[in-house]
Amino acid sequence: MLSYWNDYPTIQSKLQIVCSLIEKQLQVRNKEIQETLVDFANSGGKYLRPAYFFLFAELGETNQQDEEQLIQVAASIEILHMATLIHDDIIDDSPLRRGNITIQSKYGKDIAVYAGDLLFTQFFDLLIQSMNGSHYLEINAASMKRLLLGELDQMHSRFNKQETVEDYFRSIDGKTAELFWLACAQGAHFGQSTEKIEALAGQIGRNIGIAFQIYDDILDYTADQHVLQKPILEDLAQGVYTLPLILANKEHPEVFAPYLAKEKDLSLEEAQKVAELVISYDGVQKAREFAQNYTERALQDITQLPEGSAKEEITQLTKQLLQRTF
Amino acid sequence: MLSYWNDYPTIQSKLQIVCSLIEKQLQVRNKEIQETLVDFANSGGKYLRPAYFFLFAELGETNQQDEEQLIQVAASIEILHMATLIHDDIIDDSPLRRGNITIQSKYGKDIAVYAGDLLFTQFFDLLIQSMNGSHYLEINAASMKRLLLGELDQMHSRFNKQETVEDYFRSIDGKTAELFWLACAQGAHFGQSTEKIEALAGQIGRNIGIAFQIYDDILDYTADQHVLQKPILEDLAQGVYTLPLILANKEHPEVFAPYLAKEKDLSLEEAQKVAELVISYDGVQKAREFAQNYTERALQDITQLPEGSAKEEITQLTKQLLQRTF
Repeated sequence: MLSYWNDYPTIQSKLQIVCSLIEKQLQVRNKEIQETLVDFANSGGKYLRPAYFFLFAELGETNQQDEEQLIQVAASIEILHMATLIHDDIIDDSPLRRGNITIQSKYGKDIAVYAGDLLFTQFFDLLIQSMNGSHYLEINAASMKRLLLGELDQMHSRFNKQETVEDYFRSIDGKTAELFWLACAQGAHFGQSTEKIEALAGQIGRNIGIAFQIYDDILDYTADQHVLQKPILEDLAQGVYTLPLILANKEHPEVFAPYLAKEKDLSLEEAQKVAELVISYDGVQKAREFAQNYTERALQDITQLPEGSAKEEITQLTKQLLQRTF
Repeated sequence: MLSYWNDYPTIQSKLQIVCSLIEKQLQVRNKEIQETLVDFANSGGKYLRPAYFFLFAELGETNQQDEEQLIQVAASIEILHMATLIHDDIIDDSPLRRGNITIQSKYGKDIAVYAGDLLFTQFFDLLIQSMNGSHYLEINAASMKRLLLGELDQMHSRFNKQETVEDYFRSIDGKTAELFWLACAQGAHFGQSTEKIEALAGQIGRNIGIAFQIYDDILDYTADQHVLQKPILEDLAQGVYTLPLILANKEHPEVFAPYLAKEKDLSLEEAQKVAELVISYDGVQKAREFAQNYTERALQDITQLPEGSAKEEITQLTKQLLQRTF
């Protein structure tokens, strides 16, 4: 999926090197695990987080940068992301990821548990290779913990009909926004930008991450209903209530109560009915307004970045990613 | 289970502080996970690895030691051990651990996956707090990886009737001996011993770990058959062929072939019959000789440690642990 970066040739070539490094990190004596992970690494992830990392790194003093370090840090971010995806798919019993069958449904949960664990060790390994002694080691450990706590929040609030907008934002702040925050802040830091730019980069990353997750959650309600091979409405079926539903349910709980009461027994037809209700009671529209608001904040902050091609590419990518039409 | 250390009051009081630190590390906003992990931490582990860590630390220059650092490193070792146990129990579908119901069978695999992941983050966190900038960070990352590869070896060779003594030793070297090696080597290092003592400590730890695992595997064949509430013969039922069986099967494959061919369909009665055959064809006796050999090597190396009460306690503990009678 590096073809996504055809318009960003510098980023594309760096991401290619990151891909190779990740593949090298996945060489282990257990060939079953190795092939599983290499397959997964090549299964269509866009490497969005490493891409933002490099774009923010380019804002800094490029002649003072350590190229090898930047590649290693970029790879560590993607590996951490991959590890959490693999373990999440176990929790969700998810059959599909990126249009491909998930590791847990293809190879079983045993392989999936250890495959994720192995990625955590490789994440750790890359961090130590690239930043031993840096305070960013602590920051990475804290981010990894927040990521996990975000996932735990989501698991804990399954089938919670009282889930609030605040609960939702707390969960996505951990499970998604944290890693965008880390990618952008680390990019500025290891790219030798000032602390002021580093703080701004982190703030931009967090807002991009939040908007990104909201749009992703909206897609669960608006994606083409005729293409039901994809697990759309999957979150709903699993009791993960996201922003569009939370917003519609907040205003019209009586409409949704009979459906939500069914919990795991909600049929596909009923789930589709809920999706229609979420749309007709403006849940999607209001969620989109939230996403637009976060996107606006990110774009506003981006205008304050130092001028140059990196700033232009950050602007272009963020618009491409977040100014979606549905 | 800190009562195990009644004869080692100094170690006991240090382990008590480690317990408190671990409990503190397990405070997270998700109360379900927190209680699960606190229960598990208090469920009867002997804290053997941190104990060896402290004993080897005492050999060094005690007036140059950083007490807080030692406590953190000791806790990191036990937390890494706990994390691997929890994920192993998912793989094994194991109902019991330390005489208690396992996390995965009590709370489900979802909680167990994240509980283990959370411990990996806390392991990482403690390491960074205690040794950021030290080359022992790399050593810990490498150990974590070897631990996992040992588990993968074991998973990969399930129901492998051709499993060799070499395969067995490679697997236990990773899954068990590595962490004993780490505990003892780190004890000497952070206890401010010389590099020579550090290398010797690691070697002692590795041999103790190997002997410890062999005795543990022997127990699966010799534990009281009338107490079948305990999952004895569990490894056999799951296709994990350990040293006693490997040794007996090597000499008399024709005796074991009909049983091993049944793989997952082996009944409890058949498993008991296999255990009897392993004993009557000297598998247990020969495995015990291996264990005695590694124990002897460890005790021999221990005689070369600097004189003092730490050396005496290391000798006493190792004999108590490994000179078992069956």
